[in-house]
Amino acid sequence: MNVAFIGLGNMGSAIARNLIGAGHALTVYNRTRSRAEALESLGAKVAATPAEAAANAEALFTMLADDRAVEAVMFAPGNAIQGLRAGAIHVSMSTISVALSGRLAEAHREREQHYVAATVFGRPDAAAAAKLFVVVAGPPEQIQFCQPLFDAVGQRTFVVAEDAPAANVIKLAGNFLISATIEGLAEAIALVRKHGIDQNAFLDFLKGSFFSAPVYRNYLSMLAADKFEPAGFKLPLGFKDNRLLLSAAEAVAVPMPLASLVHDRFVAAMAQGLSESDWAAIGRITYRDAGLKRDT
Amino acid sequence: MNVAFIGLGNMGSAIARNLIGAGHALTVYNRTRSRAEALESLGAKVAATPAEAAANAEALFTMLADDRAVEAVMFAPGNAIQGLRAGAIHVSMSTISVALSGRLAEAHREREQHYVAATVFGRPDAAAAAKLFVVVAGPPEQIQFCQPLFDAVGQRTFVVAEDAPAANVIKLAGNFLISATIEGLAEAIALVRKHGIDQNAFLDFLKGSFFSAPVYRNYLSMLAADKFEPAGFKLPLGFKDNRLLLSAAEAVAVPMPLASLVHDRFVAAMAQGLSESDWAAIGRITYRDAGLKRDT
Amino acid sequence: MNVAFIGLGNMGSAIARNLIGAGHALTVYNRTRSRAEALESLGAKVAATPAEAAANAEALFTMLADDRAVEAVMFAPGNAIQGLRAGAIHVSMSTISVALSGRLAEAHREREQHYVAATVFGRPDAAAAAKLFVVVAGPPEQIQFCQPLFDAVGQRTFVVAEDAPAANVIKLAGNFLISATIEGLAEAIALVRKHGIDQNAFLDFLKGSFFSAPVYRNYLSMLAADKFEPAGFKLPLGFKDNRLLLSAAEAVAVPMPLASLVHDRFVAAMAQGLSESDWAAIGRITYRDAGLKRDT
Amino acid sequence: MNVAFIGLGNMGSAIARNLIGAGHALTVYNRTRSRAEALESLGAKVAATPAEAAANAEALFTMLADDRAVEAVMFAPGNAIQGLRAGAIHVSMSTISVALSGRLAEAHREREQHYVAATVFGRPDAAAAAKLFVVVAGPPEQIQFCQPLFDAVGQRTFVVAEDAPAANVIKLAGNFLISATIEGLAEAIALVRKHGIDQNAFLDFLKGSFFSAPVYRNYLSMLAADKFEPAGFKLPLGFKDNRLLLSAAEAVAVPMPLASLVHDRFVAAMAQGLSESDWAAIGRITYRDAGLKRDT
Repeated sequence: MNVAFIGLGNMGSAIARNLIGAGHALTVYNRTRSRAEALESLGAKVAATPAEAAANAEALFTMLADDRAVEAVMFAPGNAIQGLRAGAIHVSMSTISVALSGRLAEAHREREQHYVAATVFGRPDAAAAAKLFVVVAGPPEQIQFCQPLFDAVGQRTFVVAEDAPAANVIKLAGNFLISATIEGLAEAIALVRKHGIDQNAFLDFLKGSFFSAPVYRNYLSMLAADKFEPAGFKLPLGFKDNRLLLSAAEAVAVPMPLASLVHDRFVAAMAQGLSESDWAAIGRITYRDAGLKRDT
Repeated sequence: MNVAFIGLGNMGSAIARNLIGAGHALTVYNRTRSRAEALESLGAKVAATPAEAAANAEALFTMLADDRAVEAVMFAPGNAIQGLRAGAIHVSMSTISVALSGRLAEAHREREQHYVAATVFGRPDAAAAAKLFVVVAGPPEQIQFCQPLFDAVGQRTFVVAEDAPAANVIKLAGNFLISATIEGLAEAIALVRKHGIDQNAFLDFLKGSFFSAPVYRNYLSMLAADKFEPAGFKLPLGFKDNRLLLSAAEAVAVPMPLASLVHDRFVAAMAQGLSESDWAAIGRITYRDAGLKRDT
Repeated sequence: MNVAFIGLGNMGSAIARNLIGAGHALTVYNRTRSRAEALESLGAKVAATPAEAAANAEALFTMLADDRAVEAVMFAPGNAIQGLRAGAIHVSMSTISVALSGRLAEAHREREQHYVAATVFGRPDAAAAAKLFVVVAGPPEQIQFCQPLFDAVGQRTFVVAEDAPAANVIKLAGNFLISATIEGLAEAIALVRKHGIDQNAFLDFLKGSFFSAPVYRNYLSMLAADKFEPAGFKLPLGFKDNRLLLSAAEAVAVPMPLASLVHDRFVAAMAQGLSESDWAAIGRITYRDAGLKRDT
Repeated sequence: MNVAFIGLGNMGSAIARNLIGAGHALTVYNRTRSRAEALESLGAKVAATPAEAAANAEALFTMLADDRAVEAVMFAPGNAIQGLRAGAIHVSMSTISVALSGRLAEAHREREQHYVAATVFGRPDAAAAAKLFVVVAGPPEQIQFCQPLFDAVGQRTFVVAEDAPAANVIKLAGNFLISATIEGLAEAIALVRKHGIDQNAFLDFLKGSFFSAPVYRNYLSMLAADKFEPAGFKLPLGFKDNRLLLSAAEAVAVPMPLASLVHDRFVAAMAQGLSESDWAAIGRITYRDAGLKRDT
């Protein structure tokens, strides 16, 4: 399949490689061109602009940092929407606001293009291993058409709705649940540690009973070690998602006090200079509140 | 083994049955005698007082509702400590305060008896199926001696410390994590529902990715159905554990804002008349705050 | 003094009348022209555009609903900045974001105009009675020049900084403290009422001891009556200010958990359909959480 | 009037002196006898036991640290209730639980004694200056009889109910509102400081507009100076009152999330070693969360 791919950060590069590996013809674009050129040896063509990348694509993937980056690629002069032909499909993987996802759906509809939101769960190592969870919403026919692409990058696809922004809501809800779990674990670990109990006994219990799901293992290890560097997912990105969540919640009048609590943890963590750490470093704020020193 | 068993509520009865089923000789006591007599046909002897129940026991199990009930059985005139012989082991399964667990350890030590805290995770159906998780702390030799008893009632035993109250801390921390998960799920589901998304799509995603651990399934179903009756674990019991947790946290100066948030949910739920519902009904407070009606 | 006045809502109209009453020559503009024409009989000239209103002004007052309204008036084609002459002073009274206040300061500087942020505290009745508190920041010389104007509309002026956005920060901080007081009072009143105590005895105590400051009286009356209509300051406006506050706090990494708590109250109140009520109606959420019915 | 006075800490000693100064005959008791003897030169008689102190009293004042101290004085062998004659009045000034206040009312009723709860607001300097606010509940006739005593120690008496524990509820509610104000002010000051604004300008505004009530001045000064020593009211006492409040709220099912927030601040402050500081030092936790260093 002819695929355009815009946005070659850690996640994007890994996903693009897997698409190439599955035999698809990729035309790639990245603002910092060198990251695009790194894929040339694998057979990717490098485009000079988003519009050029999109020109021949059956499917255009975007995997960008935030709303601003997506707006620049999709709406600025020389953008991808103008390049994309009618009938083509925009597969939007970025974690963006629900509102922007709605605007993209509308913009593509006007040009008789298709829009599918395909958000992904997993860290860069899961992306490299094609083990992402892909949460997809959009028109069923186009989702079916793209299924081989999702299969090439993820371990499982969840089709959740025909209205594309639904996938963005679920992405934000999912990240919220992870952040809420981090907060809960940090409070529980602080309690256990200050009662003089070996935290590993507690972690073994958690992993052997409740929290047997794979996703927790990573966070339990970081929280137990009180070591959040190097970051798998940087704290300010987690904060960005928290703000997108709160906006999406305000838009439909849903109070989320646990999300507000996590919000305040993120702000405190940034005030403490933890912006280069993994987002699980909100747990360090919990520990510090409890008077736990790092090397205790 | 000669086992005394005091406290035959839903959990206690199921556990006692499994001990009998594994071939142990049980002498049972319950304040409401009829619940003790129900075990007579299985071969249990019924004692008239806690002291009488404890008299010949190698191991004395207690599974009672709260601190007050344990104090009545263990410290009041005619109590079990007086009946228990030196060298015998008190296996305390009740969810009680960390402070009371410490006092029990001390009281048994003075009489040259042994004290093991063996807290359990699982609802009555798990107890009946001998699928509990047992979290044990106390002297290693006595824990080893009791291991067949734990095997008869649970699917797995976690030995966490030599200091018995550690098992009570971990019980409270574990229940806290469940309650925190309920709160997080309720907020996320409210968000998804008010965005007009089919909540089942969201739940399928959660169960198929993050929250694949068995314990969540029950809560996800209740939260999705917004139906919390009949109760598996009644809301006031959940609130009791939350208060024990906050006391245990205050005792070692650990702020737990997520536990405080859940605390306030419990209080609101009781103010709304949800005391007969499952503790997951704190989610109904979340839904109601979001303006979601029950039958929407 | 030649004064332009843009934005004639309840607050703006009252302030403009007081400026006219103090002998100043006003040219007024309002998007809904009829509200401007209502001032013609008092001697005000009505302008057709913001630029026309600003043309001869020594001081241009703006009192608009939010950032969007200010941006429309100040930056859109035919805007007031283009009309304003060099050396003139923009007196910005609107409750806007700290970021927009900074952009306005910059825009005026580029055109050799002056920018003073003069935020006001007080409800429409205080505005009508020229009893506002005016919090001013900006260049000292221009503030001194405008002092007669502030005297015409307020009971007291507080000059807080030379950097104009400081007045916006303090406006948001002040409104936050009022909202926090409402929350505190509502929780305390709920406690007193559910203990069966006459709430008036409690209010008399508060007014006669701690909360003797005039500003509380209004809120205590509304909270005691559990009656928040008609609104003096509508709930969505209070929510708007709360969001501006949280943004200003995020910008400098200050966690404000009490502001987050109030945030969640606002969202719940809007979910309950209280958008036409006074912002003190967040107290109704507190009451409802406590199971207090309105007419109890 | 013949007055017994038990409990001569900082507050009690100051109040007792004012009663002596108003011409009343005091018999005093204090566990640490030297504090009682310090009043002998003013004419007080020193009793050896609570019962002896109470023997001839028309009114028995108690001003003790907490529930435990009151229980020791009122219910232990040789206690004051046994010493007090029928018809005498117990004036309970201590900040105790609502539940204990109810038990005291009951115990005195059984002995045909009277019970008045007379809680006080004000720090030791206000007590010394006879400027306390006295919040009284109990039988009207006895309150009227004691009015000269209240006049001798306070600037104003608020009679709030005939049911004595109501005064304890209002005491806790009042202290809650002060603690909530401290939290609000600390968050606002942190915001102002991190925006680079002179906090004194902000404080001048507050004192000159909203927070003109005398009680704030003290806290604003401490919070502005970020200096909470020496303590006027020690942090663990504030925490004690917060816990009594939360218990009183749980008893009638009132969720108080702002009280929970303050609770967590107290716990964090104790974890940081601030137990010797004034309770306003919860503000230091707020500052620290915001990354503000003490000497910034």
